[in-house]
Amino acid sequence: MMEEELDQPIRVGDYTFRSRLFVGTGKYSGYDVMREAVLASGTELVTVALRRVNLANPNEPSLLDFLPSEVTVLPNTAGCYTVEDAVMVAELARATGIGSLIKLEVIGDPTLLWPDPVLTLRATEKLVGLGFTVMVYTTPDPVLARHLEEAGAAAVMPLGSPIGSGQGILDVEAIWRIKERVTRVPVVVDAGIGGAADAAVAMEAGADAVLVNTAIAQAQDPVAMAQAMQWAVKAGRQSFLAGRMPKRPTAVASSPETGKVSHA
Amino acid sequence: MMEEELDQPIRVGDYTFRSRLFVGTGKYSGYDVMREAVLASGTELVTVALRRVNLANPNEPSLLDFLPSEVTVLPNTAGCYTVEDAVMVAELARATGIGSLIKLEVIGDPTLLWPDPVLTLRATEKLVGLGFTVMVYTTPDPVLARHLEEAGAAAVMPLGSPIGSGQGILDVEAIWRIKERVTRVPVVVDAGIGGAADAAVAMEAGADAVLVNTAIAQAQDPVAMAQAMQWAVKAGRQSFLAGRMPKRPTAVASSPETGKVSHA
Amino acid sequence: MMEEELDQPIRVGDYTFRSRLFVGTGKYSGYDVMREAVLASGTELVTVALRRVNLANPNEPSLLDFLPSEVTVLPNTAGCYTVEDAVMVAELARATGIGSLIKLEVIGDPTLLWPDPVLTLRATEKLVGLGFTVMVYTTPDPVLARHLEEAGAAAVMPLGSPIGSGQGILDVEAIWRIKERVTRVPVVVDAGIGGAADAAVAMEAGADAVLVNTAIAQAQDPVAMAQAMQWAVKAGRQSFLAGRMPKRPTAVASSPETGKVSHA
Amino acid sequence: MMEEELDQPIRVGDYTFRSRLFVGTGKYSGYDVMREAVLASGTELVTVALRRVNLANPNEPSLLDFLPSEVTVLPNTAGCYTVEDAVMVAELARATGIGSLIKLEVIGDPTLLWPDPVLTLRATEKLVGLGFTVMVYTTPDPVLARHLEEAGAAAVMPLGSPIGSGQGILDVEAIWRIKERVTRVPVVVDAGIGGAADAAVAMEAGADAVLVNTAIAQAQDPVAMAQAMQWAVKAGRQSFLAGRMPKRPTAVASSPETGKVSHA
Repeated sequence: MMEEELDQPIRVGDYTFRSRLFVGTGKYSGYDVMREAVLASGTELVTVALRRVNLANPNEPSLLDFLPSEVTVLPNTAGCYTVEDAVMVAELARATGIGSLIKLEVIGDPTLLWPDPVLTLRATEKLVGLGFTVMVYTTPDPVLARHLEEAGAAAVMPLGSPIGSGQGILDVEAIWRIKERVTRVPVVVDAGIGGAADAAVAMEAGADAVLVNTAIAQAQDPVAMAQAMQWAVKAGRQSFLAGRMPKRPTAVASSPETGKVSHA
Repeated sequence: MMEEELDQPIRVGDYTFRSRLFVGTGKYSGYDVMREAVLASGTELVTVALRRVNLANPNEPSLLDFLPSEVTVLPNTAGCYTVEDAVMVAELARATGIGSLIKLEVIGDPTLLWPDPVLTLRATEKLVGLGFTVMVYTTPDPVLARHLEEAGAAAVMPLGSPIGSGQGILDVEAIWRIKERVTRVPVVVDAGIGGAADAAVAMEAGADAVLVNTAIAQAQDPVAMAQAMQWAVKAGRQSFLAGRMPKRPTAVASSPETGKVSHA
Repeated sequence: MMEEELDQPIRVGDYTFRSRLFVGTGKYSGYDVMREAVLASGTELVTVALRRVNLANPNEPSLLDFLPSEVTVLPNTAGCYTVEDAVMVAELARATGIGSLIKLEVIGDPTLLWPDPVLTLRATEKLVGLGFTVMVYTTPDPVLARHLEEAGAAAVMPLGSPIGSGQGILDVEAIWRIKERVTRVPVVVDAGIGGAADAAVAMEAGADAVLVNTAIAQAQDPVAMAQAMQWAVKAGRQSFLAGRMPKRPTAVASSPETGKVSHA
Repeated sequence: MMEEELDQPIRVGDYTFRSRLFVGTGKYSGYDVMREAVLASGTELVTVALRRVNLANPNEPSLLDFLPSEVTVLPNTAGCYTVEDAVMVAELARATGIGSLIKLEVIGDPTLLWPDPVLTLRATEKLVGLGFTVMVYTTPDPVLARHLEEAGAAAVMPLGSPIGSGQGILDVEAIWRIKERVTRVPVVVDAGIGGAADAAVAMEAGADAVLVNTAIAQAQDPVAMAQAMQWAVKAGRQSFLAGRMPKRPTAVASSPETGKVSHA
């Protein structure tokens, strides 16, 4: 597995990670299986919804206690629908001493959990101004992605398909459209991955990393799936770096009949 | 990586292989890079077109000399368009002392290199009668696949898309339709894989193994791609075993307007 | 709508049809709605399962009585699993005086209703020898399609996806792969169409006609759907003849990073 | 064709149109073929880039002179990258006496001609405040679409794929996700349609109308394609109203093997 070493680590602000698989902590049946899955994934960056962390009562167990000590914790603003809420949650996270890294989510639809493009950009500008390292969840919109990079985001995180849908990457070219326009910070596919193959597809298409939560937590065997995701991300990344062959059509698109209609 | 150990080896006739990635030897720029790629893939089964093997002149280098000694050689009948030719090539292969394992290809179209379904079945019956262990290249046809198993094939190998096209798995459900009907021998996706993500897709869909040639040989970096394929196959297999979450729709299919047309 | 006139009628043996939409008669809630739907579709060729026709009791209503007098009846061998059964049903149909036109189905799987490729070819040879005009239901296999034309079939009818699944055209290129090899008789997409858009897709891809049953019979409003199918077939055919623009990629496939992995 | 009459005309602000096909006027080889194609399409609404209209020299022919007198002209702001430019072009259009209907495009990327989501919303608010009837070109973003409706847009026009790419509808569910959130004004698929089948797909998926330009103008036979589009839009709309059958899977998704991996 020596080739693996030759890939560059991914940089997010001042952080560097060798693993290009980031994972979430929601939707597990319990903290123990979550911890096992995090370990099996080989991840170095784990996102946590601040509202799910027990800050109030130090006598009760906290999700954070179950995370391996070597992973970086990435607090997120899941559940925020306004710039003000997102900023408040980010400030709260920083106040706990976790640091200035934040995964920004400003949601515009309670059913789809789809980002609000306008508020997401505004909150990014605000948080960057406040000194945060902002990894921003966004739509697969190449123009918005460029605006987010220009606003100072440390990573742009387009959805592959709606959160928790497991539909995979609805528009594979979208990843590369964004990569062509976001050139200074990583592009991380966040949301929609349903199985390990989806993660391989995203990475082979040029994503710098993927963030996976539901696909691991709600697999029949979350720990085995976490391992699968680790291999899939390495496989897809390596396939991208190795330069895959082009697709070749096997049928011609037009015919002698084409254009025969006349209209005098 | 202990989970890996828990998967069963794949059985083909009397052979067992721990790696579920089989590879080809054509279309490389040279024997050295081919050998390196075979090693990087971790494969234990390598297919070789008999007509490409130098049997005549023992003083000139043979492709076989460049294969790692620990891999099993799987001679194939590439280039055969009739039952007679395919049987002759198989007999020739066995006469060299390689053994009774044969990858049967009976092609029906010189452009697409598409299997001839009728001749493929007939040649399978013939070769099984002659004592061969037949791994048979076929169309993604569930009924033909069942016939091939009934005829005694040791592995059924449907194409994902035409040989060398790199189009991936055109119809993912086809794999499972075949798996539901071929229950005693492995189903190996053969042909069409263009990048590592395609291999992961095939395995996650339930294939027992994949055979890859062009996608490795014609990658910009064949050795790196071979490694990517190794990881992809493990990832896809593990994802299948781990039981991926279902896909969930994010839009309802019908509407209050539906069915409003009337016709008195 | 004058352009419509400029298209050539489709020829099947000695028959010619101006409408390129063929329809089935099964799965309707009643004969009246079936008749209305047949009329709304504008079809000139209607397929009928012989086993569903009341031949025994002339005092009871027959499906045939509800068909418009101007349509051609195409008896089919639905439900046959052997060459003998299919030939017997075809002979029975001819004996009723309907004529020598037959839609041949030799099924190989009771769940998928998937054609048996080997028996389908054999039955085609047999029926052609007996003087039938054979329209043959087949898999989307370009080699088998060519064999069927060579055996004397008057129309080759590949499935788009399994009968009654409504999944549409699983592999659009398959239509053209077959068209490149079957050049003397029409290629009719039979099975799998779920909505009018699927019919347009099949025709735009180069099919000479489509046969639709379930998608009309099981629409919420079968008569309205029959009309939709009529327009869709004309639209798709016209789009094919008009010569559609090529698809243009919007993202480059490779990147400066590609191929960076080294392995000394 | 009586069913056609039963569909409601589509309303955009104070306008009503019986045809649900809107067309553009760019990329034709000449004004004559453009006029013929517009007529063949049966459209009642034709969009024109104001910068392409000859306003300066009344002695030279103008594109507008070639439009059938009965169609409504929809000036658009193609080529605008700022709110100010778009507003200026809209004001200029209104000053010519064409009326207050405007197709708003605020582009954020010169290669993809992708809308800028933030500026598009801002320009919509501005133009609505100035009394325009705004049909707004947008990304397939359900949250942005809802904001645009709330801002007073008279029609929301998401792209199916990038302008001029002919890639069709990249994410069919996106249309319905938007329809579920934009309930008071029409949803018009604008951009990406490459052939008539794409138009049928968009309409069957629930779009209220489609706008087509390149697919007609750059077909080998634009006039024939215009006719094809007319039929396709009617077919897709009718299929939507008729209530298509559901898609049915033909392979089960899981297996007895699933979940067999253990990790003690």
